[in-house]
Amino acid sequence: MENITSYIDTHKDRFIEELFELLRIPSISADPAYKNDMLKTADAIKASLEKAGCDTVEICETPGNPIVYGEKIIDPALPTVLVYGHYDVQPADPIELWTSGPFEPVIKKTDIHPEGAIFARGACDDKGQMYMHVKALEYMTVNDKLPCNIKFMIEGEEEVGSESLDWFVKRNQEKLQNDVILISDTGMISNQQPSITTGLRGLSYVEVEITGPNRDLHSGLYGGAVANPINVLSKMIGSLQDEDNRITIDGFYDNVEEISLEERAEMAKAPFNLEEYKKSIDLSDIHGEKGYTTNERNSIRPTLDVNGIWGGYTGEGAKTVIASKAYAKISMRLVPNQTPEEITEKFTKHFLKIAPKSVTVKITPHHGGHGYVTPTDNVGYKAAHKAYAKTFGVTPIPQKSGGSIPIVALFEQELKSKTILMGFGLDSDAIHSPNEHFGVFNYLKGIETIPYFFEYFTEMSK
Amino acid sequence: MENITSYIDTHKDRFIEELFELLRIPSISADPAYKNDMLKTADAIKASLEKAGCDTVEICETPGNPIVYGEKIIDPALPTVLVYGHYDVQPADPIELWTSGPFEPVIKKTDIHPEGAIFARGACDDKGQMYMHVKALEYMTVNDKLPCNIKFMIEGEEEVGSESLDWFVKRNQEKLQNDVILISDTGMISNQQPSITTGLRGLSYVEVEITGPNRDLHSGLYGGAVANPINVLSKMIGSLQDEDNRITIDGFYDNVEEISLEERAEMAKAPFNLEEYKKSIDLSDIHGEKGYTTNERNSIRPTLDVNGIWGGYTGEGAKTVIASKAYAKISMRLVPNQTPEEITEKFTKHFLKIAPKSVTVKITPHHGGHGYVTPTDNVGYKAAHKAYAKTFGVTPIPQKSGGSIPIVALFEQELKSKTILMGFGLDSDAIHSPNEHFGVFNYLKGIETIPYFFEYFTEMSK
Repeated sequence: MENITSYIDTHKDRFIEELFELLRIPSISADPAYKNDMLKTADAIKASLEKAGCDTVEICETPGNPIVYGEKIIDPALPTVLVYGHYDVQPADPIELWTSGPFEPVIKKTDIHPEGAIFARGACDDKGQMYMHVKALEYMTVNDKLPCNIKFMIEGEEEVGSESLDWFVKRNQEKLQNDVILISDTGMISNQQPSITTGLRGLSYVEVEITGPNRDLHSGLYGGAVANPINVLSKMIGSLQDEDNRITIDGFYDNVEEISLEERAEMAKAPFNLEEYKKSIDLSDIHGEKGYTTNERNSIRPTLDVNGIWGGYTGEGAKTVIASKAYAKISMRLVPNQTPEEITEKFTKHFLKIAPKSVTVKITPHHGGHGYVTPTDNVGYKAAHKAYAKTFGVTPIPQKSGGSIPIVALFEQELKSKTILMGFGLDSDAIHSPNEHFGVFNYLKGIETIPYFFEYFTEMSK
Repeated sequence: MENITSYIDTHKDRFIEELFELLRIPSISADPAYKNDMLKTADAIKASLEKAGCDTVEICETPGNPIVYGEKIIDPALPTVLVYGHYDVQPADPIELWTSGPFEPVIKKTDIHPEGAIFARGACDDKGQMYMHVKALEYMTVNDKLPCNIKFMIEGEEEVGSESLDWFVKRNQEKLQNDVILISDTGMISNQQPSITTGLRGLSYVEVEITGPNRDLHSGLYGGAVANPINVLSKMIGSLQDEDNRITIDGFYDNVEEISLEERAEMAKAPFNLEEYKKSIDLSDIHGEKGYTTNERNSIRPTLDVNGIWGGYTGEGAKTVIASKAYAKISMRLVPNQTPEEITEKFTKHFLKIAPKSVTVKITPHHGGHGYVTPTDNVGYKAAHKAYAKTFGVTPIPQKSGGSIPIVALFEQELKSKTILMGFGLDSDAIHSPNEHFGVFNYLKGIETIPYFFEYFTEMSK
């Protein structure tokens, strides 16, 4: 019976090559053109779960992309860990900024990853992090080390709102019954300082369309006399934040949980270097809500960001046109007690109110999600804490993340269990951006840490 | 010897078919991909000028697209008319809104053109209006009716700033010497009420680029803590106009000519129906600078319009990204005494001033142009006035246009002659928009009117 470090040492090339295979399939859920690739990815995951030791694996049909469900039940009396992950990825654009093909995985060295990192869309979010669990299961199966029951639920719509997962979970509460849910889809502070995410922000995402004249117009003949939808949209968006970068939507902060000064002081102890932060993304200056630090702004405070805007002539050179329509995609990150339903409604009401009569406004809500907080006195949290300490040799820090995994709130509601966010990515991994990558160190460290979680969780649950 | 109406009657099908041939060539100057089509169009125009009776026609090389120059000098002692036109066209996008191919000309009936209109990119702006002069020359040549000298200068960069024309005119002042310049590249009030454009607005056109972080970021992990270039750009653009829709750029109105109440009262007499105007482009309400009417806003007042905006994710569905960059194309129409150099400088200074420190701003000026006023006591204006009255049976009205033909100011400066804007298009012809068209009535009426201009101008010049 091999221990985990020597098992990884023996098999790491294969572990990387198997992940590469998955990364080569462009499973972009936002674009219907990739439907076949979604199915291909689900098939590949099914095969890998079977190979890793699951007793049964199914590809479960849903109204959208299928969910891969697998399980290995060694004793119904023992605890059950449900591993969640997703096989869909973000779109790769702007494609021209990738230094290698987004679906042609390759290992390149970086300052932060001197041992090399796997560059590909989905390397970190979430194929790489999800596949760590498959390889951890393989180790536990081969070496007869699985101490409890394990279930896998790998979905294909995380990047577009997990609608089918919601549908699936509500119809399969019995099958999905578990004692703890384990997700690796978040990050940690650094490779020297592990951390466990204990909070996630919620999300409200809307698309807006402003229509002025019924067709594009010549800006000379009509300019000045008709509402230009791009000017109007810009002014409306610009007015959504005041001079202190506070959001002006009526009632937006009504339910925002104000964090105590004590907790803020505690947060401020996490290692953070503002100059390095600025340098890492080449910021000329920081920017954000007055009265809060950078780490508070991106974790415990709500936001409003335009994720995309378009309208009029965007080609080479100059075209003197007044566009008929202008569009924007706008998302708001929410903190505990704000709900996506509430905020989407407040946004809609406010945005319609501030529109001039000379345009018409259409607002389409995209997916949303509730925020989440993991209690640190939970057995799962404690087991994760001990596992990181074991493999990193450093005590992990609890940390609130600015990101959103809307389904965590759903799990709590439908499955009545807590989620442990055991992430191994880094903020610098460029998830959702060109040149997404995942450190080889992080990938292998995840595979090493997960079996300890299973061991400690089973022990602590006794 | 045939008179013009019977000549048109005999040859109109051919006149239309010949124009169709020109319209089939996609001579889009803004897009380098169409370079060959530019040359093809210039060749076609050369051939048509030779056929119509020019003694010499040359394709003149320039740093950009060639200029077609032709002339027929019957007696150096007689006056010379220089006809200017352009063979380049605007891009056709958004292509999906065309009801027939932009480069597949076809005649379709409309409410305003019950006798049919020619639908194609460039039908009105400016291939159709330019070609009227070629056919008028043909009539005058065939019927020995040309009363004076004629020169043609047809360029291929009007839609992108006429840079090569500037270069060409400055180097060919002797060759281009003339007594009046005649241009058909504007519109008239209606087919029942002709008008002559006596004023044009100037133009300043800039492209702006806002950079925040050096790469696209995940809006959860970074949202709230970094400047989002789209939010920033929107706020900056939104602030360029105040609640009264006045432009807030420092010193923007300093040199604006205030039109007297008498002249405004005179302008107000032109036939105009606000409800029909709104209906024609389906406006829910009018919009513009406080204190001015719609007709004043789009002719005697300066403007600021965003012609295009883009940044971030603009595909299907939702992507939670903070873009690294956001862009806009912004143009300002100028009135007499405002110069493009002055306004571009004021814009640049103001835009840099209002940018937060958390972003960097790059401003690229595109082409600009000065405004122009035609004096109504000029012989050329009087000849045009008499020609319209003759063929329409209605006295034409002088009218200031909101559009810009920057080269008119250049002509006055370099060639020391006045320009007469004898346009036959209508505002509803959708120039620069999908489904551009030009009434068959207007095309033939132009061919009919132009020979009278030559006759009256020669007589009045004696």
